[in-house]
Amino acid sequence: MKMSATLAADQEFERRRLAGEQVLFLATGEIGLPVLPELRERLIAAAGRNAYGPVAGSAELRLAAAGYWSRRGLPTDPADVVCGPGTKPLLFALMLAVGGDVVVPVPTWVSYAAQAQLAGLQSIPVRTRPGEGGVPDPTELRRRVLNARAKGGNPRSVVVTLPDNPTGTIAKPETVRELAEVARELDLVIISDEIYCDLAYAPTVSPATYAPERTVVTTGLTKNLAVGGWRLGIARLPTDELRTRLIGIASQVWSSTTAPVQAAAAYALAEPPEVIERVTASRRLHERVVREVATVFTAIGAELAPVQATCYLYPDFEPLRGQLGVNSSDELTQLLSTRYGVALLPGTAFGEPQRSLRIRAATSRLYGETDAERSAALIAPDPLTLPWISASIDRLTEVLTHLTNTKESNVHRHLRS
Amino acid sequence: MKMSATLAADQEFERRRLAGEQVLFLATGEIGLPVLPELRERLIAAAGRNAYGPVAGSAELRLAAAGYWSRRGLPTDPADVVCGPGTKPLLFALMLAVGGDVVVPVPTWVSYAAQAQLAGLQSIPVRTRPGEGGVPDPTELRRRVLNARAKGGNPRSVVVTLPDNPTGTIAKPETVRELAEVARELDLVIISDEIYCDLAYAPTVSPATYAPERTVVTTGLTKNLAVGGWRLGIARLPTDELRTRLIGIASQVWSSTTAPVQAAAAYALAEPPEVIERVTASRRLHERVVREVATVFTAIGAELAPVQATCYLYPDFEPLRGQLGVNSSDELTQLLSTRYGVALLPGTAFGEPQRSLRIRAATSRLYGETDAERSAALIAPDPLTLPWISASIDRLTEVLTHLTNTKESNVHRHLRS
Repeated sequence: MKMSATLAADQEFERRRLAGEQVLFLATGEIGLPVLPELRERLIAAAGRNAYGPVAGSAELRLAAAGYWSRRGLPTDPADVVCGPGTKPLLFALMLAVGGDVVVPVPTWVSYAAQAQLAGLQSIPVRTRPGEGGVPDPTELRRRVLNARAKGGNPRSVVVTLPDNPTGTIAKPETVRELAEVARELDLVIISDEIYCDLAYAPTVSPATYAPERTVVTTGLTKNLAVGGWRLGIARLPTDELRTRLIGIASQVWSSTTAPVQAAAAYALAEPPEVIERVTASRRLHERVVREVATVFTAIGAELAPVQATCYLYPDFEPLRGQLGVNSSDELTQLLSTRYGVALLPGTAFGEPQRSLRIRAATSRLYGETDAERSAALIAPDPLTLPWISASIDRLTEVLTHLTNTKESNVHRHLRS
Repeated sequence: MKMSATLAADQEFERRRLAGEQVLFLATGEIGLPVLPELRERLIAAAGRNAYGPVAGSAELRLAAAGYWSRRGLPTDPADVVCGPGTKPLLFALMLAVGGDVVVPVPTWVSYAAQAQLAGLQSIPVRTRPGEGGVPDPTELRRRVLNARAKGGNPRSVVVTLPDNPTGTIAKPETVRELAEVARELDLVIISDEIYCDLAYAPTVSPATYAPERTVVTTGLTKNLAVGGWRLGIARLPTDELRTRLIGIASQVWSSTTAPVQAAAAYALAEPPEVIERVTASRRLHERVVREVATVFTAIGAELAPVQATCYLYPDFEPLRGQLGVNSSDELTQLLSTRYGVALLPGTAFGEPQRSLRIRAATSRLYGETDAERSAALIAPDPLTLPWISASIDRLTEVLTHLTNTKESNVHRHLRS
């Protein structure tokens, strides 16, 4: 089992940073923002909680999670909620609970296929439609599932990412509805990873809207409130049967979720004004920076679907292949790392073929080195005017123009407009 | 996948408690003691830590864990330590990492075989020697592994529990050495679950002493410091290869361990005086109460190996079969639960055959209902004199004498001696 590409990149970055190297780190989506003080206070207040508590999570947490989803158009009973130490273990346990082959989108988050493999399941990669990352093309999904079944395979679920990582796009409501219809026709469980649901700059519709009887939704506080290191995820289960199965697996694999973190999460998921304000500020910051960085990639001639969510971009350097002297996204990111100290992830980490020149950039670590800088970024009327953010974007511009021999003046014409 | 028997019992108890029932709860080993204040302070001080950090755990935590093991006769490099959200996920990931069939002791902790099943592996139950729970009888282990291999099976690992849950006993050093020799001869990885290592009342020797090249040791703070709900476990890996494989799986299944908890654990594993003092007090408390409860079972005529560790007893009601009117440990615990409100776990939960009348009792929830009572129990010169503890033991005595028609005076002659 290979190490998660994103976590490996995080550790490599930390190593280079400690070695005193200057690295422009755009490789992973860990959110470089401080903990909301009121959220930290809730963790502190619950520090004495040392009991396991229910496997599915405390009553208080499940109630808050039910409210969170209900306010987003997905009416939820607290009994339908299962909590875990991150959405990652929840997604893995869901694969074990559903069984059978798993359809995953391409491009795809780094861990779905690896998790399927660990669960002893086959994964079936199905490309997404252009500009609609995260949702396997429903037409192709149907064809591939029927084909697999004709050959004796047993596809039982399809994973979707809404909004999408790695592309920063959102599948259209029509596409999501089509997917839901195909899933119903073929009796597939939809596992909808909605960890970025609060970082969308355009409307998102969950497949649970169209196929509530078969859609599991997962999310957490890692992206909207920047507490990935606290490890908490929640799942919304469509049936008693699947929930019971998930809880059984959870009880054998992880017992329960860190109790003080559950208490803090219950507070956050109830969405008091200061939480809403913080999530709104984070979303604005991500949007402003990610759109600016998108402009840099577009200006040097990379192809890029308009960013609609998250802190990710997924440019394709195919139009620039001739002038780059590289044959793969691995070579391209290697070149950017060793020659320029710019860390990005190659498309191969997301299931792209070797030859593709797609790469993923994340802006979530550009907001500052210190809590003071990061807090300033959150409240800045225009974060792009902050010297540490503009310096990173200038450096990226310089690197990409040098790499592609673009005239820098051409690029600057696109920026700060 | 069935729910963990212990966690199911915890939840059932909570349900009955909330419904106002009086239940004498001896079913599970959640440690009913408060968090050491200095440990809680460390969690509080680290509440702002929100980054994932390394998959294997922070450098600080791994250094402390290495010291912890080194002080126990197992020299450890921090690089050999991998942290996870509990020893449960670590044990599961280790099974995935090693692969092949897994030999488990009988009686056995409730989750080993379930985890093997989830990992798609066969488990091979091998009985322990009388009075030496947790270590499959090495002679029988050898026979069964050779037999399995002759039939095309692929046993690759053996799990041991030292000290043992459910029996509260400790395998003799000679038995552990024999096991290590058989494991070496047959090239098996030894997975040594030592979560109770600080709650031993007799010497314990880890198989890592005899077979350091093939023994993984796991432990955590759940039992010695009563923070099961915080979710942190550590593993000590014997080879780079297995460690790399474990970290790869961890990166795909859980990413990292709650960062503020890691900080608190680093403090605890460094074992400053107040931590040693607390662990010592807990051990004394468990020992005093568990030995007294053992006497109750012995007095009514159940068979019981001398308790040497943990808060568990594993009495066998076989000598009393005639007067009980039950045919299985399930019926026996059912009877005790419904007629008397005493919650215990049947031997079937630990891999015993249906007909066996072995049951497991845990004393870890007898120390009080409130933090004040529990703190008083920790410092009491004789905890048996505390009214809430003596009331529980009196009630158990009353129930067992009634159940078995023993003269209560006979029982009392054995007690408080």
